[in-house]
Amino acid sequence: MSKISTESYKGVRDFYPEEKFIQKHLFAAMRKTVESFGYVEYDASVLEPAELYRAKSGEEIVNEQTYTFTDRGDREVTLRPEMTPTVARMVASRQHDLTFPLRWYSIPNLFRYEKPQRGRLREHWQLNVDMFGASGISADIELITVGYTLMKNLGATDTDFIIKVNSRTLMTDLFALFSLDDDQSHKTSKLLDRKNKISESDFQTALNDIMGDNWKDFERLITSQERLMEKLEHTDSAKEIITLLESLIRQGIKNVEFDPTIMRGFDYYTGIVFEFFDTSPENNRSLFGGGRYDDLLDMFGARKMPTVGFGMGDVTAQDFLQTHNLLPAYQSSTDLFICLLASEYEAHADDLAKTLRTKGLNVAVNYSYKKIGDQIKVADKQKVPYIIAIGENEATSNTYTLKKLDTGEETRGDVDTIVSTIEAKK
Amino acid sequence: MSKISTESYKGVRDFYPEEKFIQKHLFAAMRKTVESFGYVEYDASVLEPAELYRAKSGEEIVNEQTYTFTDRGDREVTLRPEMTPTVARMVASRQHDLTFPLRWYSIPNLFRYEKPQRGRLREHWQLNVDMFGASGISADIELITVGYTLMKNLGATDTDFIIKVNSRTLMTDLFALFSLDDDQSHKTSKLLDRKNKISESDFQTALNDIMGDNWKDFERLITSQERLMEKLEHTDSAKEIITLLESLIRQGIKNVEFDPTIMRGFDYYTGIVFEFFDTSPENNRSLFGGGRYDDLLDMFGARKMPTVGFGMGDVTAQDFLQTHNLLPAYQSSTDLFICLLASEYEAHADDLAKTLRTKGLNVAVNYSYKKIGDQIKVADKQKVPYIIAIGENEATSNTYTLKKLDTGEETRGDVDTIVSTIEAKK
Repeated sequence: MSKISTESYKGVRDFYPEEKFIQKHLFAAMRKTVESFGYVEYDASVLEPAELYRAKSGEEIVNEQTYTFTDRGDREVTLRPEMTPTVARMVASRQHDLTFPLRWYSIPNLFRYEKPQRGRLREHWQLNVDMFGASGISADIELITVGYTLMKNLGATDTDFIIKVNSRTLMTDLFALFSLDDDQSHKTSKLLDRKNKISESDFQTALNDIMGDNWKDFERLITSQERLMEKLEHTDSAKEIITLLESLIRQGIKNVEFDPTIMRGFDYYTGIVFEFFDTSPENNRSLFGGGRYDDLLDMFGARKMPTVGFGMGDVTAQDFLQTHNLLPAYQSSTDLFICLLASEYEAHADDLAKTLRTKGLNVAVNYSYKKIGDQIKVADKQKVPYIIAIGENEATSNTYTLKKLDTGEETRGDVDTIVSTIEAKK
Repeated sequence: MSKISTESYKGVRDFYPEEKFIQKHLFAAMRKTVESFGYVEYDASVLEPAELYRAKSGEEIVNEQTYTFTDRGDREVTLRPEMTPTVARMVASRQHDLTFPLRWYSIPNLFRYEKPQRGRLREHWQLNVDMFGASGISADIELITVGYTLMKNLGATDTDFIIKVNSRTLMTDLFALFSLDDDQSHKTSKLLDRKNKISESDFQTALNDIMGDNWKDFERLITSQERLMEKLEHTDSAKEIITLLESLIRQGIKNVEFDPTIMRGFDYYTGIVFEFFDTSPENNRSLFGGGRYDDLLDMFGARKMPTVGFGMGDVTAQDFLQTHNLLPAYQSSTDLFICLLASEYEAHADDLAKTLRTKGLNVAVNYSYKKIGDQIKVADKQKVPYIIAIGENEATSNTYTLKKLDTGEETRGDVDTIVSTIEAKK
């Protein structure tokens, strides 16, 4: 038989226990944070009808940037590239049974067909948090607060990241002030989105190309929050973003700023948009973002549904944690490894393990009957923190020597001593 | 714009919070149980190179029963139909770095391309538990004990299910006793596997067809454990299965029996095989099973790896729990819903929610400013157990009335009273 490769498929990851541990740490912080704000978990299959993406993204993007294939029943199927169309489908399907505001979250895996590179894999996981049916600015404030709290729960400090916010409506009001038509507005949006990636003179030239002589006034406004807000103070959109910033600051969230270059790539945003950035020089980039999208249920013929949400990808989050030294060291979920000196003590070891398990410990028994040194090596390599060896003495006395492998520290005692010693160190 | 359907793809499930709650309950019991025995979690992508399945299953099965497609790099990709080839690949890839025995588990989603029917969907999840690098019978005993403990942790009693065990080696020894050749042995295995689905006379006729006049002696043996064991008592396989049964019974697992008709469909089993059956008349069927497979790493050209494992599917498990009335009632992960009587109390509500969250409660704030009755209806419909309403009185006194929605019970007090009241009822 010819040998089969042990490589995984291109652009996806195997999660050995060490990598799964990191993912579980990240997901646990995500769940804890969003549930503390009242979000409940939903889920769906990774397989979706391709038409769900064609309407918004167009034929070409679906065909070229997603995994789409035809099943034997002639259905076009896509491996979901994002979760928003799925959750919109689910909400639209039951909009008359569900009650609003609805706080939902999920941590789906998503697929995109592209060349794998740092921070961009073909499969990644993404926390999706959304509040459906909430039109007021309080929802936008909450979602930014959720993102901020999640960063803090992951161990980040206020200087590790900055939150930049903008408003699509405010930009529309600004474009109106300059009498820009749809095409000019669209071009200006794209240009603002690129502003930090191009030189100042390139930006000015492009702005001039779009709006002519007005470009200087326009640039003067967008480079000063004060001037822009003063100019637009009569608009609801300016009032809204000021309320938002004031409310966040009142709640102690001070690493937040208004930034008119935050546009967010997706066309579906309709109001406030926000983006969290890493402040470290070596990883200075967008971490995650979101905003308000009120028209997403339209494609299902469902009623309007004001919604605010954001998505945080696992690869970007892990890069951030690594850059800032916030990744926890791997630790086995197993607390204790019982080594057996001979097979006649097996029944004793099984009974001891059973008792310890009912008391809440995770206990593995080694039935290899290898030399004790070899058994300890296995425990050590697998990062199990404690061991016990069972021989004649232990089996007759019910007294054990609990050894902590990293320090060599030993504790002698009965079952309760084992439990209390291990629990105290957790 | 034409309307897009809100239906999910055929044969897969949407998990609204109520369904996700059940799945989380099941997965939590799985994780708790297997981790208590020292198994650690691993994971992988749902996408695998198709060659991983062709070697074992053959071209036809891969093409017709799995989701397999060609990517734009001309790679054949399969949505994994089972986890065992994946975990074998991962172990083979690092067999020189890993230490054994290795206890690993995962709860992957699996895909098969077939007509959806009750208990058989196109996507399901499956707990996979394996001990790698353990050749002795103690490993087989442990895996059966893990399965038993999981059933108990899910709320099952000993009369709700029965564990049937057999040994592939024992059957090989039995076939040798009757001088059956490979073809006869294979046919007899298949026939035994079908024994409980066909009539006694059909079974006897088929047995006669395979082995001629010897069929009566053969049938006499396989219908009596005593006679069979007496006849084969000189073999290691008989000694092994007796050790296994005695050890399980000693540990208090009494709903276990030897059954020579348990063959398990997969060709890769090489020793002990076992299957858990529901005993209820209306759901009398196999729940899950597993066994020993020692040759699985061969296809990677890796060294022999004695392994015991089992897999438990979520759909079958949920059917079992439903049949035996063991499904928990849905409860929101949100503890408390704060209703606001007017927008001027929003800052007070936000601060209160923040304090309660730091004390471990999951708290949602309703910013809709609808009538209090309407706000309570939302909390009730979303199965949030407690509400508080914030008005002038509460905002100035910091004293709140906590209402439990199902009983109408009210408790008046400060922040600490709220926390202790809710925690006491959890």
